[in-house]
Amino acid sequence: MQLGKWTGSLKKYWHRYSPSINSSSRLIEPFRMQQKTPECIYIIFSLSEVLLQIEVVGICGSDVHYLVHGRIGPFVVNKPMIIGHEASGTVVKVGKKVKNLKPGDHVAIEPGVPCRFCWYCKTGDYHLCKDIFFCATPPDDGNLSRYYVHEADFCHLLPPNMDLEDGALMEPLSVGVHACKRGNVRVGAICLILGAGPIGLVTLLSAKAMGASKIIITDVHDIKLQMAKRLGADYTINIEHLSKKGIINKIRELLGEDPTISFDCCGMEQCVRVAVTVSHKDWRSCYPCRFRKIRDDPSLASALMREVDIRGVFRYNNDYPTAIEMVKTGKINVKPLITHHYTLEDTLKAFHTAMTQEGNPIKVLIHANPNWKAK
Amino acid sequence: MQLGKWTGSLKKYWHRYSPSINSSSRLIEPFRMQQKTPECIYIIFSLSEVLLQIEVVGICGSDVHYLVHGRIGPFVVNKPMIIGHEASGTVVKVGKKVKNLKPGDHVAIEPGVPCRFCWYCKTGDYHLCKDIFFCATPPDDGNLSRYYVHEADFCHLLPPNMDLEDGALMEPLSVGVHACKRGNVRVGAICLILGAGPIGLVTLLSAKAMGASKIIITDVHDIKLQMAKRLGADYTINIEHLSKKGIINKIRELLGEDPTISFDCCGMEQCVRVAVTVSHKDWRSCYPCRFRKIRDDPSLASALMREVDIRGVFRYNNDYPTAIEMVKTGKINVKPLITHHYTLEDTLKAFHTAMTQEGNPIKVLIHANPNWKAK
Amino acid sequence: MQLGKWTGSLKKYWHRYSPSINSSSRLIEPFRMQQKTPECIYIIFSLSEVLLQIEVVGICGSDVHYLVHGRIGPFVVNKPMIIGHEASGTVVKVGKKVKNLKPGDHVAIEPGVPCRFCWYCKTGDYHLCKDIFFCATPPDDGNLSRYYVHEADFCHLLPPNMDLEDGALMEPLSVGVHACKRGNVRVGAICLILGAGPIGLVTLLSAKAMGASKIIITDVHDIKLQMAKRLGADYTINIEHLSKKGIINKIRELLGEDPTISFDCCGMEQCVRVAVTVSHKDWRSCYPCRFRKIRDDPSLASALMREVDIRGVFRYNNDYPTAIEMVKTGKINVKPLITHHYTLEDTLKAFHTAMTQEGNPIKVLIHANPNWKAK
Amino acid sequence: MQLGKWTGSLKKYWHRYSPSINSSSRLIEPFRMQQKTPECIYIIFSLSEVLLQIEVVGICGSDVHYLVHGRIGPFVVNKPMIIGHEASGTVVKVGKKVKNLKPGDHVAIEPGVPCRFCWYCKTGDYHLCKDIFFCATPPDDGNLSRYYVHEADFCHLLPPNMDLEDGALMEPLSVGVHACKRGNVRVGAICLILGAGPIGLVTLLSAKAMGASKIIITDVHDIKLQMAKRLGADYTINIEHLSKKGIINKIRELLGEDPTISFDCCGMEQCVRVAVTVSHKDWRSCYPCRFRKIRDDPSLASALMREVDIRGVFRYNNDYPTAIEMVKTGKINVKPLITHHYTLEDTLKAFHTAMTQEGNPIKVLIHANPNWKAK
Repeated sequence: MQLGKWTGSLKKYWHRYSPSINSSSRLIEPFRMQQKTPECIYIIFSLSEVLLQIEVVGICGSDVHYLVHGRIGPFVVNKPMIIGHEASGTVVKVGKKVKNLKPGDHVAIEPGVPCRFCWYCKTGDYHLCKDIFFCATPPDDGNLSRYYVHEADFCHLLPPNMDLEDGALMEPLSVGVHACKRGNVRVGAICLILGAGPIGLVTLLSAKAMGASKIIITDVHDIKLQMAKRLGADYTINIEHLSKKGIINKIRELLGEDPTISFDCCGMEQCVRVAVTVSHKDWRSCYPCRFRKIRDDPSLASALMREVDIRGVFRYNNDYPTAIEMVKTGKINVKPLITHHYTLEDTLKAFHTAMTQEGNPIKVLIHANPNWKAK
Repeated sequence: MQLGKWTGSLKKYWHRYSPSINSSSRLIEPFRMQQKTPECIYIIFSLSEVLLQIEVVGICGSDVHYLVHGRIGPFVVNKPMIIGHEASGTVVKVGKKVKNLKPGDHVAIEPGVPCRFCWYCKTGDYHLCKDIFFCATPPDDGNLSRYYVHEADFCHLLPPNMDLEDGALMEPLSVGVHACKRGNVRVGAICLILGAGPIGLVTLLSAKAMGASKIIITDVHDIKLQMAKRLGADYTINIEHLSKKGIINKIRELLGEDPTISFDCCGMEQCVRVAVTVSHKDWRSCYPCRFRKIRDDPSLASALMREVDIRGVFRYNNDYPTAIEMVKTGKINVKPLITHHYTLEDTLKAFHTAMTQEGNPIKVLIHANPNWKAK
Repeated sequence: MQLGKWTGSLKKYWHRYSPSINSSSRLIEPFRMQQKTPECIYIIFSLSEVLLQIEVVGICGSDVHYLVHGRIGPFVVNKPMIIGHEASGTVVKVGKKVKNLKPGDHVAIEPGVPCRFCWYCKTGDYHLCKDIFFCATPPDDGNLSRYYVHEADFCHLLPPNMDLEDGALMEPLSVGVHACKRGNVRVGAICLILGAGPIGLVTLLSAKAMGASKIIITDVHDIKLQMAKRLGADYTINIEHLSKKGIINKIRELLGEDPTISFDCCGMEQCVRVAVTVSHKDWRSCYPCRFRKIRDDPSLASALMREVDIRGVFRYNNDYPTAIEMVKTGKINVKPLITHHYTLEDTLKAFHTAMTQEGNPIKVLIHANPNWKAK
Repeated sequence: MQLGKWTGSLKKYWHRYSPSINSSSRLIEPFRMQQKTPECIYIIFSLSEVLLQIEVVGICGSDVHYLVHGRIGPFVVNKPMIIGHEASGTVVKVGKKVKNLKPGDHVAIEPGVPCRFCWYCKTGDYHLCKDIFFCATPPDDGNLSRYYVHEADFCHLLPPNMDLEDGALMEPLSVGVHACKRGNVRVGAICLILGAGPIGLVTLLSAKAMGASKIIITDVHDIKLQMAKRLGADYTINIEHLSKKGIINKIRELLGEDPTISFDCCGMEQCVRVAVTVSHKDWRSCYPCRFRKIRDDPSLASALMREVDIRGVFRYNNDYPTAIEMVKTGKINVKPLITHHYTLEDTLKAFHTAMTQEGNPIKVLIHANPNWKAK
């Protein structure tokens, strides 16, 4: 593979990674080269896009979910799709109109590029754009590849004191930032976070950086709660053997009061009931995890009588700059989230770790740059 | 009953109306005189309260509910309680500190007086005050009586072009105003209102006055929908024989698009599902009616992915001035809502009408002033 | 001029209108044909632009200002520039990606097309984009021409009950809508509008449509105040011979209270002082007219002690849909603003009227469609 | 002075401190006993007030200003007035209705008690109440005394890890908190603070605690800038010999960009001009210091074209809990602000220090508890 020969058709010259699953539930055909005609791509690239060498790609629960189930809700994988959307890269070439980047720059890649023309885009909610391109959400290919072409304004420059692993982590961190902005976390907030998986942890980090006074976090695995504690949680509760009432009592006992904001980062029905019950005035649900069922109606009715707001949270918009700022200024350290490293060639192993949770992974990173060497 | 003899103990010298129900489900002991010692009352009255001659009191669904069921959710009638909270009155005497009113003034009575000391009160959400006194919510007595003492700042002066019947209607209208403020109704809003009872109708009136472009309203009774049409609804749907999918299709067919704001003014599970499904960006639930059960989880999960806000709506705060302004300036005419008139002596008949819905009542008014004469 | 021969280079084949002024201060060379190479234009046109036949173009004070003074603040006319930015048109051809329009559609043309890539564009404040193209703001050409090419999403479809003259008026009306949104005008607002020129009048119309209870407007010309009265102003004051104190006293005498929101639509120092003095809680300044000097410091200091907000207002963003909705639903009638009609050939006469104010013009319209016939 | 003898009239039994100035401009009659009839006081005290032993009182610039000039703007000292409003105390007795406090509690005293009845009070803006009682704003007496009676809900409980000196500092810190809330300081904010006096410094501390990324602060005294640096300022500029243009250039050179929020904490005309010029999108003025004159009109006009908001900032409301939370959780350390200590008997010396600025005082504290001993 020689970069010199490529002209305008770079977008399609990458390594394809196919998440197809055969009858024995194992990955097949993980890498495949594919070439397509380049014409229209070149024209677009020449204006506002950049060519990136992909450096680090984190594995997200959704990647695993697509691999195992072939779908997430309405999004179905009908044809081979490259996965990966938590990526950092190095700029190789820039389009003629690109002013914010130059070759050699390190960037965090925001994976969703909206249409820029619809009402949502023009009112600042571009993440709700119905024509958004989003890496590794079917049918859009992701960026787990050697090279990738992306709109320059969705490639966020990393400052000198942040490395490319930090860059890959900006995607999940932006989810936490967005949830906390939707939840209006401020100095003095008392936060309940239900679930200590990656989304729960980035919500924890963001909430602390935004000034939350007290954070209580729940999970059913002690090892996750230990990590939460290490990252700054004030209180943790293992809710495995607790009833709804038991959880609520424990929360109130530890806090001495009710939380002001709750985040559902697990989607368990019981947790949603807890969140609705204990919150006052402004309950916010962090959706990225599945908020599946609310059968427990009295909780909801009672919450509405307290004028609690239940706010959906979806991905992020204009949140990368805040996420980067937090890490750059030392308010957040994302390094403890990184537990495993693999090369692009070892993608199968990386997914095995993510799927089986062997070795208690939080963030599994795949290094796409062939020159990467494990420290 | 002679006013001249009363000194400081006016608060307890009124006619008591007891909503007790005997074995044959009929009201008993409707009026009863009761006297209590006056000392502390006098002191408070002398500062910031006014003595009112009650003029017009509307019957609310909650009054009927307490009468029939003895409770609404956590509020239980454990001892005889005077009912009535949709009232207007004439000022008879004013406390020493009262500057906004003088004897002879006509006022609409806001029935909830908060503690003025808690966090909710000091941050402008006094309706969420946990120590609020609220007429005819147990154990607080209501104002369906000849005379009544109330905090002066919760008695809102009626302008010359509004009569005392309008004044009584300000209570339900404030519910509609508050719902529309919570729902952020503005010029261009496309509103779906589920339920054409009194709450649905005042929400309709308020939404129109705030600039809503199109309003679609649903119910299972054609006669209610006809009233909604008369009050300004652009479209109506009788949903009695429609499935959830059928309702949604009908809404989209009539509007040509999805509503921007939905109000649940009936609490039927199916309606809530509809509201969650068709709304985009900002769904608001008007709680005052029972938002009982959401078993239909996919609707809710999908709504949260669109970052729809589900906002509880509870009573009103600082909304009476807006409600009065709307009627005063001709933006709203509440007169069509008034369908029945009774004297205080005929309270039993009034409640019979409200309970049986004979004669298709919307608002049943009781005239507490013995000098009132039917027009 | 034959449309059939044109291919992709339509953007530059229009009639050029040059606002150059010769030594005797008269317009010269009003129309001039110019041809440029079409290549790059075609490609862009083919995606998201539409070709429009321009129908009606209103003359704005800024057009006259550029003509007379050659500049407005930092914007200087250094080379011939086509003027006109209050336009409506008929769609002739649409680009391949255009979905919202088809040939024959009537549209109101929003004159500013932003870069779509910067922070302002992505957060919903596209009107503050520093790379915005804006019709008839140097060096960008305006649309006072037979044909014009524009981004489709900035061409707003007119509903059947609005004509092309209404369409041209949507530009100034959007200024009023934006000012009222910035000023948070709602039901019950008491508005003071300083200046009854076109901007003052559209602010008046918008404020009323958004629910303002009382509107008081000032000017130094009785004829303008009469028009304001006709359009719905509750009170008018001719301030020509009044001191600042005199104006304030008159306002308070007429209203019986202080306004809640003030709009500076004239830029006179005295008016700004008045606005700052009488407003409480939230004073908003409508900038489009010149807010030049505040020498009267005590007013401003005092306003800040009342936590009054002084908010800049610049053009509009996402306000055309609201403006159109208001006219479509009958909340606003812009027809009374239209006082004069001219053909494109009579552009010189049109500007003479606008400049001299002979015949007391409010809105002077130029009809660019050669088939237009005066009614 | 024996506490046991006092009954209900405690409010008037304190040491009076009179800020009268004789012909030689020196304080006279610093302490004076005064007794008044107690009746009405007792009744009020018995409900919602507490009797406090005053512990620590900070000297504010306004105290000095009243002493030297006898007035601040519209507030004139017409009769002897006890000064002091930055106080902490120990609860001695509580009224019957008081639930949040008990004897022995340490509290920070919020000096303004509003009427609780007006529109401002009921909408959450109680600090704008026109009938507010405010310690040491004429004609209301302050709390530089041995004992003091105050509404319990305006006495904020100090947590165990905060001492009574911290408590006295909560008043100025609340000014900073309020300014930052009005300025909407969040993670990533780039703040310009003009003036490094006490208000500038508490604004600096608050902005950092709320997540500001970069803070640049200006003053004309190097010693104040050194303190600002010590408290966390990223950049400082001594503007004594700089022109407006020079200051702006220096700011841009140091930051590499324009600040997002500016606070005027000095009131110098030149500083206001700088603030208006460099800010973008949301400029906020911290009023507590004198925002006296804006003669430089082009700056303001240009700011309004960028839709900059100029927001008045007045005292604080509902900000004490946030201020206490910040110190309690270690986000802010106010101790470095405390430079001088005096006993109540040495009040004259304390004011001498504050007036002359000898020894470069920031916060001068007076210890009202006779048992206090200097460490």
